[in-house]
Amino acid sequence: MKPILLKNIILNGSLSDIFVCDGLISKISKAGQEVPAIDSGVEVMDCSGKTAFPGFINMHTHSAMAMMRGVQEDTALHDWLAKIWGMEAKITPDYIYWASKVAALEMIKTGTTTFYDQYWFSPTTRKAAMELGINPCVTYVVLDRHDKEAAAFQKDECEQYYEMSKSWKEDSAFGISIHAIYSVSEPMILWATEYARKRNLLIHIHVSETLKEVEDCKAAHGGLTPVEYLDRLGVLGPDVIAAHSLWLSDSDIQLLGERKVNCVHNVNSNLKLASGYMFKYQELSDAGVNICLGTDGSASSNNLDMLEAMKTSALLQKVWRNNPEAWPLEELAASATSNGAKALRLNTGVLEVGKRADILIVDTDNTFFLSPAPFLANFVYSAHSDCIDSVICGGRIVMKNRVVHGEKEILENARKIMNDLN
Amino acid sequence: MKPILLKNIILNGSLSDIFVCDGLISKISKAGQEVPAIDSGVEVMDCSGKTAFPGFINMHTHSAMAMMRGVQEDTALHDWLAKIWGMEAKITPDYIYWASKVAALEMIKTGTTTFYDQYWFSPTTRKAAMELGINPCVTYVVLDRHDKEAAAFQKDECEQYYEMSKSWKEDSAFGISIHAIYSVSEPMILWATEYARKRNLLIHIHVSETLKEVEDCKAAHGGLTPVEYLDRLGVLGPDVIAAHSLWLSDSDIQLLGERKVNCVHNVNSNLKLASGYMFKYQELSDAGVNICLGTDGSASSNNLDMLEAMKTSALLQKVWRNNPEAWPLEELAASATSNGAKALRLNTGVLEVGKRADILIVDTDNTFFLSPAPFLANFVYSAHSDCIDSVICGGRIVMKNRVVHGEKEILENARKIMNDLN
Repeated sequence: MKPILLKNIILNGSLSDIFVCDGLISKISKAGQEVPAIDSGVEVMDCSGKTAFPGFINMHTHSAMAMMRGVQEDTALHDWLAKIWGMEAKITPDYIYWASKVAALEMIKTGTTTFYDQYWFSPTTRKAAMELGINPCVTYVVLDRHDKEAAAFQKDECEQYYEMSKSWKEDSAFGISIHAIYSVSEPMILWATEYARKRNLLIHIHVSETLKEVEDCKAAHGGLTPVEYLDRLGVLGPDVIAAHSLWLSDSDIQLLGERKVNCVHNVNSNLKLASGYMFKYQELSDAGVNICLGTDGSASSNNLDMLEAMKTSALLQKVWRNNPEAWPLEELAASATSNGAKALRLNTGVLEVGKRADILIVDTDNTFFLSPAPFLANFVYSAHSDCIDSVICGGRIVMKNRVVHGEKEILENARKIMNDLN
Repeated sequence: MKPILLKNIILNGSLSDIFVCDGLISKISKAGQEVPAIDSGVEVMDCSGKTAFPGFINMHTHSAMAMMRGVQEDTALHDWLAKIWGMEAKITPDYIYWASKVAALEMIKTGTTTFYDQYWFSPTTRKAAMELGINPCVTYVVLDRHDKEAAAFQKDECEQYYEMSKSWKEDSAFGISIHAIYSVSEPMILWATEYARKRNLLIHIHVSETLKEVEDCKAAHGGLTPVEYLDRLGVLGPDVIAAHSLWLSDSDIQLLGERKVNCVHNVNSNLKLASGYMFKYQELSDAGVNICLGTDGSASSNNLDMLEAMKTSALLQKVWRNNPEAWPLEELAASATSNGAKALRLNTGVLEVGKRADILIVDTDNTFFLSPAPFLANFVYSAHSDCIDSVICGGRIVMKNRVVHGEKEILENARKIMNDLN
């Protein structure tokens, strides 16, 4: 891997030089002050007028749904699901491979360097993503629909995936997705939790996404909320990444804090599917929950743009709390970067020496940054992700001046496989 | 003005050739079927793989605030206003000129071809915008703060602006902005309304933006809402463009419909300033109100991107109505295009022969359009405005392959004047 020198880049307001070596940020110095020995093996990038920012960590997505977006719009959930399930019945590993390439391409172009994925054929998604240079954290999806045969089959397959994952590099976490309490039987929830914990794997689960989920759970489990029910089963812990966490009681929030659960807010999906908007950021934060952001799958949101997710998350929080101070920018930025790294136990999410070099190089030479405002204000509230000029991921340049290697081929192959499916 | 031929462009799902002549769409034919005599004076654009869409009409903005965005974030309204007013006290026509250039540049790059503006020194904004080729509709702002001297001064100045506007071309509407009921005295509201109506000018006014405005109005005017109060004064009519219209009673909505008022929803501003989110789209639409979209000034929203405004408007409507079918795509598109043209009485907003040639050329060769979904679904919910490759406005090419003539100079001059101000 070729070392990289980012010259004259603004980092936390100071003009800096950032050195990247062996996948890590090896040195940060004031620009021009210390010039290291640069031989021809070093890739030097002149970043004058550009600003460095940590790569985004998308903490909840189903990336291979990238070619299912928009197929059924402005319709109620059951019509949407019928269409999606119809498409999912026909997917093949080949489809997953190219759809995952499309997703990885979109994530890179919008500044995501790490994503936590929940979908079928996840080793294929992982392969596709790694070929583009983005860091995938994939899971095996447990979803038995209360069917014993499915459960038995999934236990075997889970074991195969886990064996496969042993050879994967350490910095791409592998986890077990327990889809949700309504789609996975209680014995299977218990089995998957124990399976994951014995092997120190992360657990991913949809929790309290809709009011219906909460009401159904209460009816089925003696008045327990999904959070209380999962706690009774012993599922909750710091190794749990709970997607959505939208319909929570005060005691749910206390419990999530006590168990040190990580919660992922997916605002655009929640809005578009009319799941709800009252994400209790401040209460969760005060209770000690680690709060992350995700885009959800692009069939429901409809893209993988974390900068858009940041803006909408902040805007919604301000309006429903009737408080323009809600979810301030610095905390919002942490939710999109370092909090995700913490949840995934990865050495990234901040731009410091010794951290994995996951770096966005942001071009501020456009109208969106033309005001005497802090970088972060204009980046989140004003700009779009196309101001991200270049992306370094794990020490490699995966996008340079908005160009990702092989983009055209990906689009062509994706179109072909999509036409084959329809 | 050079005629333009857009070859092989997708229009409403069909591969078409669009001919533009003398500022208008002069012919639309099936691609390749009829080839007109093309001499060297015709600019031929190969639009293979691209889709045509009407230029957006931003129906409420304060465009010269483009260099004030982000200066005070995550703070309550009064702190925000103090900062903005501090900056506004120092503005000059030179500042307005370059800030308006920045705004016009941003609007073109995000697909807006016409905007309805409310701000100081509006002839300067108009000049700056026209130099970039975008269609400005500007207003004289009446805002006397209940001060008689200010009112007398503004009556004179309004007359000067109106005289100036007589020489402006017919297709750029001039209007009178009555800022709001709390900032303009009753005699001045009456004067401005009569002044506008006698001259057949549009009237622009902020109406029921916040709950406080409604409650203050009720307290001051014997229980009348702002809508009822304005109706009692004889202000409401089809020539009125009412920004925000957020806090409305059922009878307000009926009244707005009966008077055929045009209402402008500015979702991002309403969210960010925590003004509210319960815009009653369906009720207003059912009552016969012409509903348009705007971005508001970029100090409060924080950009001029109509595609972003479309997406957020639809998402919010779906979630607060708990109905994923709310504000369907076709109606949303009309709110961002043809409804604005209707309110401004302009011959644009749809791509038909005889209409003003305000055309977006959208590049769909990217991940956002890679699904078997209708163009509009992916354009609004998935893509960003940077998929807009070229823009034709009033029959002129104002952006080609994402390049706007003079962009660099605008950014440089704007930076200079901004530094001078601070």
